[in-house]
Amino acid sequence: MNLELLRELSVPAESKILLLVIDGLGGLPNESGRSELEQAHIQRLDRLAQESLCGLTVPVGVGVTPGSGPGHLALFGYDPEKYTVGRGVLEALGIDFDLQSTDLAARGNFCTVDTDGKITDRRAGRIETKHSAPLCDRLSSIKLPGVQVFVEPVKDHRFLLVLRGEGLSDQVTDADPQRVGAKPMLSRALSPEAEPTAKLINDWVAQAQKLLRNEHPANMLTLRGIAKHPPMPSLPEICKFRAAAIAAYPMYRGLAKLVGMDVLKTGATFADEIATLKAHWDSYDFFFIHFKRADAAGEDGDFQEKVAALEEIDTHIDDLHELQADVFMVAGDHSTPAVVAGHSWHPVPFLFHAKNFNPGDTTQGFNEKACAVGSLGTFPAKEVLSLAMAYAGRLTKYGA
Amino acid sequence: MNLELLRELSVPAESKILLLVIDGLGGLPNESGRSELEQAHIQRLDRLAQESLCGLTVPVGVGVTPGSGPGHLALFGYDPEKYTVGRGVLEALGIDFDLQSTDLAARGNFCTVDTDGKITDRRAGRIETKHSAPLCDRLSSIKLPGVQVFVEPVKDHRFLLVLRGEGLSDQVTDADPQRVGAKPMLSRALSPEAEPTAKLINDWVAQAQKLLRNEHPANMLTLRGIAKHPPMPSLPEICKFRAAAIAAYPMYRGLAKLVGMDVLKTGATFADEIATLKAHWDSYDFFFIHFKRADAAGEDGDFQEKVAALEEIDTHIDDLHELQADVFMVAGDHSTPAVVAGHSWHPVPFLFHAKNFNPGDTTQGFNEKACAVGSLGTFPAKEVLSLAMAYAGRLTKYGA
Repeated sequence: MNLELLRELSVPAESKILLLVIDGLGGLPNESGRSELEQAHIQRLDRLAQESLCGLTVPVGVGVTPGSGPGHLALFGYDPEKYTVGRGVLEALGIDFDLQSTDLAARGNFCTVDTDGKITDRRAGRIETKHSAPLCDRLSSIKLPGVQVFVEPVKDHRFLLVLRGEGLSDQVTDADPQRVGAKPMLSRALSPEAEPTAKLINDWVAQAQKLLRNEHPANMLTLRGIAKHPPMPSLPEICKFRAAAIAAYPMYRGLAKLVGMDVLKTGATFADEIATLKAHWDSYDFFFIHFKRADAAGEDGDFQEKVAALEEIDTHIDDLHELQADVFMVAGDHSTPAVVAGHSWHPVPFLFHAKNFNPGDTTQGFNEKACAVGSLGTFPAKEVLSLAMAYAGRLTKYGA
Repeated sequence: MNLELLRELSVPAESKILLLVIDGLGGLPNESGRSELEQAHIQRLDRLAQESLCGLTVPVGVGVTPGSGPGHLALFGYDPEKYTVGRGVLEALGIDFDLQSTDLAARGNFCTVDTDGKITDRRAGRIETKHSAPLCDRLSSIKLPGVQVFVEPVKDHRFLLVLRGEGLSDQVTDADPQRVGAKPMLSRALSPEAEPTAKLINDWVAQAQKLLRNEHPANMLTLRGIAKHPPMPSLPEICKFRAAAIAAYPMYRGLAKLVGMDVLKTGATFADEIATLKAHWDSYDFFFIHFKRADAAGEDGDFQEKVAALEEIDTHIDDLHELQADVFMVAGDHSTPAVVAGHSWHPVPFLFHAKNFNPGDTTQGFNEKACAVGSLGTFPAKEVLSLAMAYAGRLTKYGA
């Protein structure tokens, strides 16, 4: 159901919902013919699947490979085609930058231009962070009238630009031709109200160009994904529950904050995250807990490391299950098959364990093939929250 | 497909469609680990399932527990989120009140107020119908300028108020605070055109208050779900067929009438309904026949009675099948698991038997788990009609 209907039907209750997101959970067979989940020894997940409802979630749509933003927003109940998060905002979330609702954020790339000013390398040879960070420091000296300017290194050639002030508009185009051989472009206003913003951005780029022109290898930059913190309805308000997020990585904390969850302070390991979960168990109704290692391994194309990551999370399943949430879900934001070495469009295994009114299933284990014939079928990830709310006794009847 | 496309594609034909709705069909396992359908001896349904296409229908949306209105409208092809029926209208349908399209209907509750006029019991101790009916008689003496007023007992503390006249608006709020300790509220107009209607309602409530003030235990009332007969496109017009409804219970007859079906006079038992069906077999193309007992048993939380109800309907399956409809469907408007003792959000077993072009299936029997892996999958109930129309040879090609 959509968020409007969810808001209408939701009622407060005493129940608890626990959502474990294994980042990049889904995989594909390697030459052995078996996927990461099929090769991993995950007896706890396999056993839990046999007492649960299973299926496959489609993060955004058939064939759509999602980024982390849409992948998570869908699991939080937000239609990822309707609620979009600009790249600039995601970069800000990713480095824990405290973005305000009126801030304008852009993703910056250091690049290399020739003597004509045409781009020769869009990433300046993927210049390392230790070299790009001092460039960010230099750029921080640029002043603009009426707004504060922040320039923060992200990673390698990537940085974050934030303008803070009144009346900034995100109705501006990228200052990035996105191809070699072209000159960096000016940002253009898409509406009359955005003219002053476009001018500020282009002033900043012009000043930056002067500061960088004699640097090497990065002697220029481009800006894209110029965006504001999107207005998101608050999940706790919609669902009438207290929601907490536990994630070691900043971007996931940021996404949770965007939808109104309380972000709990935690440590760097998943064991730390579990300790945080247990410490706050009585204070919240909904918990999102995030496990990153599986995605990182998939991105690196490291099949055995992804298997190991899945085996690691399996050792924590009993700890989570023993908390006896009314609804315990194991989900992924998207697939990151090691054989793809990146995110993919494949539907993602999903396990739904309800304490009450659980009809049971005939799923044999927790992997892509077993979940494909689970009773939940292949369904949109944005429905996960509604299902949880229903089984947690948090929805009233629709219609008389 | 939606009703607009269905209207565009439908063509007349000689074929017949039979839709059996087993009210509250879906269930859940009890401590035995098996659901009502799994425990029931329903060899005719099980056998038919093996020669049919099976699946699970989602009445409204994932996690949504539907009332009878949306549950049936979906099976009739209407998007239950788009076409809603107000509570006042449903109450009118439920007692066979002949509601006109300009009538305004409200669901009334007799309640108890203290000397300050604050509600102390929202249902006046669930006052019995034999006590509330005379109160309705007394309230029928209230006159309002320019409109006719009807007050009809429904059941226990519930009654129906209908205003009949020109220019009545349903853009008014409930006259019901829905909580103990508050005073009954005035109805408020949501648009300027609705002001006279709100005034009429509040006048009526004020007069009712005087009439009831010395009664016991019900000395006041509240009104909610103030609604008009919603404008519904006509199913026979959309589908170019003659449609008949056979239902012993008034509410289901009323819902069928709302969408333009002819309601056939029938008796109190399902055997009566079948006799009516047979008697009119040649006169219609589409039949909706309703079986109530399964829902009633589920609502009562009586697992064995629900099993018995399912075994009863099974004894009629051959009778229905032998009519040789081109399409014979066995569906439920929603699940009413005995372990829930009420409606639930669980998808509902669905059996689709087509005489022609039936691709076959591997479904083993008619129950929740078997249907979950049927070839129709888990799909929205509002698509049932389109499927039937196609197999009945009543839809032309889309696009060249």
